[in-house]
Amino acid sequence: MVLTRTLRIKPHTATSAVYVVGTELNINLNWCAPSTCKSFSVRCSPTVKYRISPPTQAQTTLTPLTPNSTLIVTMDTASEHAFDSKLSVRYYGEQAETWGTAVLHLTAVEISLDVDADRDGVVEKNNPNKGSWKWGPEGHGAILLVNCDSESFFMKSPDYKSSKITKVSDLKDMSRMVVRTKGPAELPAGYKLTLHVSQTDAEKIRVFRDGKQGRSPTYKNIFSYFIKDYPLVLSPDNVCQEIPYNGGSFEADFFVEGLRFADKDFNGLLTINLSLLEPTSPLFPETPIFTDKVMFHVAPWIMTPNTLDPLEVFICRTSDNDAFLKGMAQLVKQSGCELKICHEFQNRGDRWIQDEMEFGYIDSPHHHFPVVLDSPRRGDLDDYCYDELLGPDFGYVTRSSCEMEVNSLDSFGNLEVSPPVTVNGRSYPLGRIIIGVAFPTTHHGRNMAKVVQDFLWAQKVQEPIALFSDWLTVGHVDEFMSFVPAPDRKGFRLLLASPDAGYRLFHRLQSDGHGQAMMFEGVSGKKLISVDDILNDPQLKYMNNYVQGCIDWNRDVLKKELGLEEDDIIDLPILFHMPEEEENLAVAYYPDMVNMIVLGRNLGVPKPFGPRVGGTCALEAELCALMAPLGLTCFFIDDFASYHEILGEVHCGSNTRRQPFTQRWWNLEPRE
Amino acid sequence: MVLTRTLRIKPHTATSAVYVVGTELNINLNWCAPSTCKSFSVRCSPTVKYRISPPTQAQTTLTPLTPNSTLIVTMDTASEHAFDSKLSVRYYGEQAETWGTAVLHLTAVEISLDVDADRDGVVEKNNPNKGSWKWGPEGHGAILLVNCDSESFFMKSPDYKSSKITKVSDLKDMSRMVVRTKGPAELPAGYKLTLHVSQTDAEKIRVFRDGKQGRSPTYKNIFSYFIKDYPLVLSPDNVCQEIPYNGGSFEADFFVEGLRFADKDFNGLLTINLSLLEPTSPLFPETPIFTDKVMFHVAPWIMTPNTLDPLEVFICRTSDNDAFLKGMAQLVKQSGCELKICHEFQNRGDRWIQDEMEFGYIDSPHHHFPVVLDSPRRGDLDDYCYDELLGPDFGYVTRSSCEMEVNSLDSFGNLEVSPPVTVNGRSYPLGRIIIGVAFPTTHHGRNMAKVVQDFLWAQKVQEPIALFSDWLTVGHVDEFMSFVPAPDRKGFRLLLASPDAGYRLFHRLQSDGHGQAMMFEGVSGKKLISVDDILNDPQLKYMNNYVQGCIDWNRDVLKKELGLEEDDIIDLPILFHMPEEEENLAVAYYPDMVNMIVLGRNLGVPKPFGPRVGGTCALEAELCALMAPLGLTCFFIDDFASYHEILGEVHCGSNTRRQPFTQRWWNLEPRE
Repeated sequence: MVLTRTLRIKPHTATSAVYVVGTELNINLNWCAPSTCKSFSVRCSPTVKYRISPPTQAQTTLTPLTPNSTLIVTMDTASEHAFDSKLSVRYYGEQAETWGTAVLHLTAVEISLDVDADRDGVVEKNNPNKGSWKWGPEGHGAILLVNCDSESFFMKSPDYKSSKITKVSDLKDMSRMVVRTKGPAELPAGYKLTLHVSQTDAEKIRVFRDGKQGRSPTYKNIFSYFIKDYPLVLSPDNVCQEIPYNGGSFEADFFVEGLRFADKDFNGLLTINLSLLEPTSPLFPETPIFTDKVMFHVAPWIMTPNTLDPLEVFICRTSDNDAFLKGMAQLVKQSGCELKICHEFQNRGDRWIQDEMEFGYIDSPHHHFPVVLDSPRRGDLDDYCYDELLGPDFGYVTRSSCEMEVNSLDSFGNLEVSPPVTVNGRSYPLGRIIIGVAFPTTHHGRNMAKVVQDFLWAQKVQEPIALFSDWLTVGHVDEFMSFVPAPDRKGFRLLLASPDAGYRLFHRLQSDGHGQAMMFEGVSGKKLISVDDILNDPQLKYMNNYVQGCIDWNRDVLKKELGLEEDDIIDLPILFHMPEEEENLAVAYYPDMVNMIVLGRNLGVPKPFGPRVGGTCALEAELCALMAPLGLTCFFIDDFASYHEILGEVHCGSNTRRQPFTQRWWNLEPRE
Repeated sequence: MVLTRTLRIKPHTATSAVYVVGTELNINLNWCAPSTCKSFSVRCSPTVKYRISPPTQAQTTLTPLTPNSTLIVTMDTASEHAFDSKLSVRYYGEQAETWGTAVLHLTAVEISLDVDADRDGVVEKNNPNKGSWKWGPEGHGAILLVNCDSESFFMKSPDYKSSKITKVSDLKDMSRMVVRTKGPAELPAGYKLTLHVSQTDAEKIRVFRDGKQGRSPTYKNIFSYFIKDYPLVLSPDNVCQEIPYNGGSFEADFFVEGLRFADKDFNGLLTINLSLLEPTSPLFPETPIFTDKVMFHVAPWIMTPNTLDPLEVFICRTSDNDAFLKGMAQLVKQSGCELKICHEFQNRGDRWIQDEMEFGYIDSPHHHFPVVLDSPRRGDLDDYCYDELLGPDFGYVTRSSCEMEVNSLDSFGNLEVSPPVTVNGRSYPLGRIIIGVAFPTTHHGRNMAKVVQDFLWAQKVQEPIALFSDWLTVGHVDEFMSFVPAPDRKGFRLLLASPDAGYRLFHRLQSDGHGQAMMFEGVSGKKLISVDDILNDPQLKYMNNYVQGCIDWNRDVLKKELGLEEDDIIDLPILFHMPEEEENLAVAYYPDMVNMIVLGRNLGVPKPFGPRVGGTCALEAELCALMAPLGLTCFFIDDFASYHEILGEVHCGSNTRRQPFTQRWWNLEPRE
């Protein structure tokens, strides 16, 4: 729709106006003429175009004046000089005698606020869809990163907290925005260009200007402070600011950063406006006579499932986990990724690095980088994400406050993500987030903090699924499920811990004559127990029936929400028990094999110390047999003393940063 | 999609399960059989249906057992007695010898949580779309009213603040919800029905149960406290509660009320769940084995434009407005609506009843009632809405807090609504809300409070338009615009104050020889001024040029946002001036005719006291001439001393409650 502006002219008077190319000026000719005027004629410079509404069939040069005679004026190109174009309207009386002439002096300017609305990494010129957002491959709308990394690793703080640009490298985290203008060397006196945002949007955005433009490089400039080169234009404290107009054809560069991720009260959309202000008089505010606008969507925080290639594996070194670390180091090396040790002075004995943080990333057509979500969990690893990970091109975000009550379900062993799935025709090409909570039908359960859940849901592109994990002492979804890559079907399998599969295996051992095979052989200080004894323990059987029911409930939810069939699921033989001191909450009876680390085709699995048959652990053999058809290799890691006995396993004690998806989030069409 | 539930059975064992009609039980037959079993056969009661997956072509009654042999079990009708249905699976070895039999005892129940999802005022049975919301005439999803009226006029408080139902009349403000069950006289031991909501939704909803159902009326019941008859089920403090199960076919009635209108952090959608819980053991929480859900949308607060029929007109009586009141009383009577006087003890001298409140309504298929939005403005009328309007079927809502800073733009003379419009193919059948703010390009302007703006935007069905009103001393949109009904075109005209039209009229008077006609004749104590003197005042002309620019800016916005053409707009001859004591802010120079009250085809217009020509006020004559073709009659009301001179007019000093739209809001398809 063409922007129109009402303009008034007067006979015997010269009026001046600045016209923006692409708009229309509407001039009602009757408003300024007395009733004695009966007709009019129009003359104008060749640069000016006009049409008359209502259209007339007048054969003469004089057009009859009607109550709504309106002149619609346009110009095709910018003026070279102020007021170099002219239009005049001559009014005539009943006898066609000239009554008076109104003159309009015009200056045309071209103004466009431009962004990368077609998402190809380049700021195009005046994209017709730049003012709105549409999801999908046929969609449009620009993208903004939350500038949550820190250009300085030593004086660190997320860059969005600073209102200054101190390093040129920070610019690449921002979205380029261009103010394109074309016109005379200077705007007519008093006219101004202004960038502005609403108060609501201002809280979430900051805009810098490239202040070097239009200046010739001098010795002084080279040594001037860098921050002076990128003056702050818009910020939470400043919703509007005049920007320089440069004559001729000019492209002024701006850099935009996001300050907040989408959340419960913020849908991620932000609008920036560029207005041309017309002076009225020193006494009155300037009037915006033209406004162009662009819309950004803040990039969501995206998690990476096990099916994406691993880049770095993080593990804590503690006083007692030497063997574990060695085993893991070998696996990580063999898997072609990098091992990052979190040293004792960093972890202060807290080894649960899976629980402390979740790796994700943010993506835009111009740039992407990893962003760690720091859990609200309180432990000695608390400072690790901020102190050791936040840095150049490594972002940081958290949803936490001192007042919050936290519980074990707030740890990020309880936050996972599925591989891409399609469910009843709805596609989730970035997978779906999975968290564990209490049954919604109970009053007294533990839940993941609402602020974290709100954040996860608000990201929109990996619509979360809530599972029931409050039946576990620790209460994390990674205690009973994992995903592994597969060459067939949906490209992955869901692995579920299954007491039933465990009992089937133990029964098979018994009926094959291995009832006296012992568990826990080789574990120092651990009492051995035979297959027969396990099968003869009615209390254990009873508890595992309950556990199987809990896992089956989650199985049904996952089948429904991920669109899985039974053939997409593999049951792993794992038993649980309920140590008396924990009130009816379950922990793994032997190392919980499903709590594995997945590095490409290599699986780092807690060594289960199961009953040995012919020198081979029957549990290891079973897992290997289940994984081999998928081309997956199991590496069994002894985590018994240093992790399993304090209620965690391999996955809990490690964390993996992975390649981002090749699929871009803006090509999704999520449920709004 | 059919809900499926994983179930496990065991040879040599009888398992019991409750089945919900419409779901599927999935039983993997291989999970419970040793590898020596090679085939199976199934028998069941005639009430039970099953199919085998993967399907087999077996010619014999024995089906080969494969790793994923699954039995899919359904039942068509509810059981009459607990566990009156049975299914058994017999397993066979290699030689077809019987190895063992697993027995499953089944109780089928029908369970449905029902609402009026098709929006016809009746709760239908198990609407397939009841769990989601879709706008539009082909849409679906139930509707909830915020229970913001007060059943008691004397002990008053909005009903949603109380967790008790004290009057049966309160039930009609609520949405009926029905739990339909069919099954044996009692659920098998330990099974429970539970209603539950998420913590987030719980803050916004309350559910009561009809506790009289299933009880025989006794003398005692009749005299028991009413509130015991409607026990509270769900509330912000109680996210889940067990509800009684009644045997046979039963419809249990529930009543749902909304506690909050949609706002910035609440999209208006609420979900209620009904789950069937299965007991595990006294030690463990019950497992939800079936969940049905319904979705409600809280009804938005809807404003009523001038084109809707008036019902009641509210005016304040003050010590000095006798004449005004008499004039208005006559107009109101003639227009067939009721006059409501706000007496001095209620208004304490504050006559700006337009500014204090805005009438709207909320609507659902089952009920609707007016709701007054109380402005955050602070004046002596502050208590009026709550004390005098809130009552049975008259709701109250406000967005205000003591800490808020308020200014004149927070008064509701600055909150209007257009008649229905269609703009570039997008239809707004309930019109669009119009508010006045400062230019977005200025730092120092006055604005309407953000909490009020957020509330208005969140209602969605009358997408607001922000105009520029900060050029006026008082700063209200009703100072320069109004809508009147019209028999043609879009069904209405936009009236705009126009200094230009004013000057045209005065010039015409001058050239017709009436330059010495005097303004303000008949106004006691007011200095007369001639047409010539007005036209010869360059300062007045200069100020009105500026005012015209401001109004033209709004004209362009309204044309664009309401899809108007010039022929939809009528310019009224009104001049403004800027009294020195006000810093460059405008007020009407003579009574501001556009600030009128519209009552059907009658317009109550501030008497302008314009120059008289042949005994007739030229301004009145002009307005009558402009309105007559639309079939509208002007009644000129003298508000000079009692309103105009203290910066308000007829519209500011009155308020009109109107008929709601016949068009229902849920048939819209608003921008989300």
